[in-house]
Amino acid sequence: MQDVTFTPVGILSSPYTDMQNMPVQSAGSRGRATINLYDDFTAGLQGLEGFSHLILLTYLHKAPAEMLTETPMVDGGEPHGIFATRHMCRPNKIGLSVVRLIAVQGNHVLIEGLDLINETPVLDIKPYIPAFDAVPDASSGWLSAQHIENILTRNNRLSFV
Amino acid sequence: MQDVTFTPVGILSSPYTDMQNMPVQSAGSRGRATINLYDDFTAGLQGLEGFSHLILLTYLHKAPAEMLTETPMVDGGEPHGIFATRHMCRPNKIGLSVVRLIAVQGNHVLIEGLDLINETPVLDIKPYIPAFDAVPDASSGWLSAQHIENILTRNNRLSFV
Repeated sequence: MQDVTFTPVGILSSPYTDMQNMPVQSAGSRGRATINLYDDFTAGLQGLEGFSHLILLTYLHKAPAEMLTETPMVDGGEPHGIFATRHMCRPNKIGLSVVRLIAVQGNHVLIEGLDLINETPVLDIKPYIPAFDAVPDASSGWLSAQHIENILTRNNRLSFV
Repeated sequence: MQDVTFTPVGILSSPYTDMQNMPVQSAGSRGRATINLYDDFTAGLQGLEGFSHLILLTYLHKAPAEMLTETPMVDGGEPHGIFATRHMCRPNKIGLSVVRLIAVQGNHVLIEGLDLINETPVLDIKPYIPAFDAVPDASSGWLSAQHIENILTRNNRLSFV
């Protein structure tokens, strides 16, 4: 299979500079950050301000490895296939974050609900459209309610650090 | 900004071979397809079968251009910035589809709810986790209820072609 080369459209300015003290998911996080689009892409933001949420696709440049299985960081347990997790150490290291849109100012997009480290390259911004993206009754596989609660609680705590 | 090179982890086997007769979103589509992972990545699927939905990230290799604005195909109207749309002709041409998981068999993942053409390269598979990904009350910006309805109706019709 032929490789594909992407050029980032912007870079994230985030308060998180240390992965140890960073939320592990955007949900539950109140951290704020700015997507700084490169000037060439500013026209692509027209009309974005009407959406309340965005899907941010990023290159997780600080992920130290690409693994095929991992053991969850929050409450341990059995290893899982990497495609059954949201772990950053995955093939191609593409991050997906659902974030709240606060404001669009020129080529800057202010967002809230962040799980990304400072200077993360941004590959794409998509508007979150509930008719396409919201499946509230989807089943969460091996994730227990407690596991999810642990992540949300941890994120909520960190966001005020 | 430095370019990033990705190696697809698999390729899609889809009934859609013609973009004219393809759903324009996964929502509303009952089309079925198979993600054929390359053998090296099969271990990454362990535990995936417990999830009802997946997020599929793909390289939209047939998108004919990268644009900064577009006019919606379904009901026309004003142009919008490309990051305020889900149009395929976007910088980096990364596709995001929320699909239903039907079965995992070896390195094959059978899915339902498809808006992708045959032989689309797959960059990542993530489990859909409602606690992270479902925002049912998010606002849909410039998209009217009628626009969304038009897309879902069109997809539903096409899926039985």
